[in-house]
Amino acid sequence: MGIQRAVVLLSGGLDSATCLALASKDYEVHALTFDYGSKHSREIDAAKAIAAHFDAKSHRILKVDLAVIGGSSLTEDTIPIKKAGSVDEIGQTIPNTYVPARNMTFLSLGMALAEVVGASKLFIGANSVDYSGYPDCRSEFIEAFQRAAELGTKTGVKGQPIKIETPLLKLSKAQIIAKGSELGVPFHLTWTCYKGGEKACGKCEACQLRLAGFREAGIDDPVRYEN
Amino acid sequence: MGIQRAVVLLSGGLDSATCLALASKDYEVHALTFDYGSKHSREIDAAKAIAAHFDAKSHRILKVDLAVIGGSSLTEDTIPIKKAGSVDEIGQTIPNTYVPARNMTFLSLGMALAEVVGASKLFIGANSVDYSGYPDCRSEFIEAFQRAAELGTKTGVKGQPIKIETPLLKLSKAQIIAKGSELGVPFHLTWTCYKGGEKACGKCEACQLRLAGFREAGIDDPVRYEN
Repeated sequence: MGIQRAVVLLSGGLDSATCLALASKDYEVHALTFDYGSKHSREIDAAKAIAAHFDAKSHRILKVDLAVIGGSSLTEDTIPIKKAGSVDEIGQTIPNTYVPARNMTFLSLGMALAEVVGASKLFIGANSVDYSGYPDCRSEFIEAFQRAAELGTKTGVKGQPIKIETPLLKLSKAQIIAKGSELGVPFHLTWTCYKGGEKACGKCEACQLRLAGFREAGIDDPVRYEN
Repeated sequence: MGIQRAVVLLSGGLDSATCLALASKDYEVHALTFDYGSKHSREIDAAKAIAAHFDAKSHRILKVDLAVIGGSSLTEDTIPIKKAGSVDEIGQTIPNTYVPARNMTFLSLGMALAEVVGASKLFIGANSVDYSGYPDCRSEFIEAFQRAAELGTKTGVKGQPIKIETPLLKLSKAQIIAKGSELGVPFHLTWTCYKGGEKACGKCEACQLRLAGFREAGIDDPVRYEN
C-alpha cells in the first residue's frame, strides 16, 4: 500500500483541528490553510500551532483574496459582523458571515493539493448541525462537489478519485468537542471568534456556538474571553 | 426584468476575450481575472486592456497563489513548459501545463462574484476541442459543477441559480477566431503564449494552437512572434 496521505483543510478553529486529529491517526497529513483576507490573522497563527502540534508533514498557507469579491461581513469592512441572537436562532437563515462559495473554492484548492502530494483523501471539518444556514456545509453539496471533482481532475479521470471526508458533518458542536477531547486536540491553541482581539469576544455567533458546545459537553473551554 | 448581469472569467487570451465580446452583447459584464502566480503577467495586462475595450462595468484582479500548491509547469519554476510536438499530438494526454483543479477554483470564485454583483450568468471560455487533454474543460465536468454550485451557494438554494455559460465549448480554435473576428475582438490585445517575453514564442503548445487556428480561419494574427 505504501504511505497513505491526506490533505486536511485547517482553519485554526476547533472543528478543523479535530478533523486534523482524526486524519493524523491514519494518514500522513498535509495541512492547507487559506488566508482569505478575513479581518484578522489570529486564525492563521492558530492553524500554524495546531499543524505543528500534530506533526503535519507539510503545512501550506494559501492567499486567496476574497475581499476583492466581497459580499461577506467576514471580509468586508463595510458589513458589520452580526451579533448572535440566541443559539436557537442560529441556522434559521443564511447569516451575513456567509462567504460566497467559500467551501467550493477551498475544496477545489484542496483537491489540487491532494493531486500534487498524492493524497487519497481530502478532509474538511464542515458540519451541518450547527451551521445549517451555510448551504456549502450540507452533505448534498459535498456529494455533488465530489462528483464534479471526479470529472474535473486528473486523478479523477486517469487514476483513483480523491475522496472527500467529512467526519464531523453530522455531529453537534458538543459532540465535536467531546471527540476532540478524546483525541487530545489542544483546544487552547484553537481560535473561533470572528473578531481578532487579544481575547475572544464571547458574543459573536461563532463564540456563542463554541461556548454552548463546551457547556453541553461538560468540558472547560481553555480559551480566554473578554470579561 | 431590469439589468441583466453576467460575470465573465477573463484570462487575457483570445478565448476569454471572445467570450467577453459575446456576453457584452446581452449583459452588463463584470470581468474577473486571476493572478495565479503563473510565470509572467503579460496575460493580466492583456486582460485589463480587453476589459477596457469592451467597457466592462467592473474588472477585478484576484490573486490566488497556485504556486503554493505547485504541480504545473505554468506555476512551478522547476517544471519546464514542454514544447508542443505537432498540433495533432495535442489533446492526447494531460499536458504538464495542466494546473490542478484550476477551472474548479476559478468557477467557484466566479460563482462567488456572480452572487455579489447579482449576475444571472457566469461565462467561461473553456473549450474541449483543442484542449481535450484538460479534464476540467469538458462538458461533463461543467454540468457536474453547475449542480454542485446550485446546492452550495445562497442563490442556488434561496434564489435563481446562476447558470454557467460555455459558448465556446464545442468550437475549434479556428471557429473561435472566426467568431471573435465577427464580434470585433481586438486580437492584437490578447496574449496566448505560455512564456512572457516581449514577443510571443511561437513554439509552446498555446502558441502553436493559436497559429494553427488563425491559419485555418484564414485570418492574420496581429500578435508579433519571435523570428
